[in-house]
Amino acid sequence: MPDRVRIVEVGPRDGLQNERAMVPTAAKIELVDRLSATGLQTIEATSFVSPKWVPQLADAAEVFAGITRRPGVSYPVLVPNLQGYERALAAGAREVAVFTAASEAFNLKNTNAGIDASLERFAPVLERARADGVRVRGYVSTVLGCPYQGEVPLADVVRVARALHAMGCYEVSLGDTIGVGTPMRARDMLRAVAAEVPMAALAVHFHDTWGQALANVLACLEEGVAVVDSAVAGAGGCPYARGASGNLASEDLVYMLHGMGLHTGVDLDRLADTGRWLAGLLGRETGSKAGRALAAGG
Amino acid sequence: MPDRVRIVEVGPRDGLQNERAMVPTAAKIELVDRLSATGLQTIEATSFVSPKWVPQLADAAEVFAGITRRPGVSYPVLVPNLQGYERALAAGAREVAVFTAASEAFNLKNTNAGIDASLERFAPVLERARADGVRVRGYVSTVLGCPYQGEVPLADVVRVARALHAMGCYEVSLGDTIGVGTPMRARDMLRAVAAEVPMAALAVHFHDTWGQALANVLACLEEGVAVVDSAVAGAGGCPYARGASGNLASEDLVYMLHGMGLHTGVDLDRLADTGRWLAGLLGRETGSKAGRALAAGG
Repeated sequence: MPDRVRIVEVGPRDGLQNERAMVPTAAKIELVDRLSATGLQTIEATSFVSPKWVPQLADAAEVFAGITRRPGVSYPVLVPNLQGYERALAAGAREVAVFTAASEAFNLKNTNAGIDASLERFAPVLERARADGVRVRGYVSTVLGCPYQGEVPLADVVRVARALHAMGCYEVSLGDTIGVGTPMRARDMLRAVAAEVPMAALAVHFHDTWGQALANVLACLEEGVAVVDSAVAGAGGCPYARGASGNLASEDLVYMLHGMGLHTGVDLDRLADTGRWLAGLLGRETGSKAGRALAAGG
Repeated sequence: MPDRVRIVEVGPRDGLQNERAMVPTAAKIELVDRLSATGLQTIEATSFVSPKWVPQLADAAEVFAGITRRPGVSYPVLVPNLQGYERALAAGAREVAVFTAASEAFNLKNTNAGIDASLERFAPVLERARADGVRVRGYVSTVLGCPYQGEVPLADVVRVARALHAMGCYEVSLGDTIGVGTPMRARDMLRAVAAEVPMAALAVHFHDTWGQALANVLACLEEGVAVVDSAVAGAGGCPYARGASGNLASEDLVYMLHGMGLHTGVDLDRLADTGRWLAGLLGRETGSKAGRALAAGG
């Protein structure tokens, strides 16, 4: 098990893009700045996917221009293609993230392109990024199941992760997009990928749709992963199961890691404050149980 | 890891006793009967603690008389002393549960008696139960922390668990009453107790106050425990942190166990239906994420 875990906070992107509430630009900027003040080292700030697909983040350029970039903190932004990459760079981004599903059916539905076409689309992004000195993170989604095709063969997950790494992604985040995974399957999946991509270049990203996210993280920590994605307040929902819960809450993750003696550099109280503030903006209760316990004086 | 896990469903007791809503007697009876129809083998049906302390379960005798006892299913009831035991037996109980905290401060606040005095109070219950052929389950609470004294020495947990087992409890359930534990601490605690009490006579009982319950269960399964307490719909709150969440939701537990290939004998769909029905009675959303995902067609 690692003795230090880096948390990739995806609330401002993966969280907000799946929330119904439209959050004002100024509040998005405040969210990122509050998060960077907690000690988080990586904060996915927004998405340069077309506003046609992600209207919640149509103000990506304004958000990115407005945040205060704290030294030592990375602010990756999601880009769908070279055009998105150029918009992100023009806005000042120094790290981007690209994404492909491990499920062919999901990729077709979600991006109107098969997996191989997606990878080809990202090749020029990675080439340009290398020339620009911009770091690229890769996401593989649907690693433990797909809302369209159901089962996703492990070999497909491995193939896509290996391709993203080979193309130059410094880190590949393995995402259980619909949150159906359980610990042994999560561990087996990670083990299979880690046979082809160094563990130090892997991250895990679990959605809590079925309440399994933290247990899955534990199983993967035991396997040696040291980077975990999560979202403050458990922001985000599940577009494939309306009413279901979204991302693993960063507060619950930090609480577990600290309780296990693993370092994160994150101030849990500040993080939980930010989570409750965000929940207020979203007009609902925080999705973090640790956040609720702290608020209750637990 | 075991290949079969027995779930002790504590919703009708540990759940309802900590809910604000007063559930009608007929609904409590229906709850127990619905639960027994899911394939659960052990359902803690109610509590014979004085209604002065637990007004929510003042109708214990009526509930117990009303349930349909399904062959092969145990229906333990909580008893605080010999008087409670006699009421339970008169109502038809054939299994009871006794309880002591591992924290001296908690025990004094909660039962007005120190740990040793509590154990002495239960000695005649266990003696009588042996004569009556009644099985006795033991609870040790506050095994990973106490709302009054904070830290609870492992040695105290071990001492109380060993005493309950030595007195004749066929099973001792180790409870993280305030849900503060994290996986390594849970595992260390279980390991320490299992050095003195056979693992086959141990159960774990985690509250989800800080969102850690399922991860803690996973760590304990890896240590070899094969009995886990939980409550349908995550019923119950935390009396020490109002507004915080309560028991581990049985649905989320069953989903994890089945996903790991472990057998429980429980029908998840029926269980989740019961959880949503109960949540409706309690006037709130189900506390089970798997229950929500199923309802959303996930």
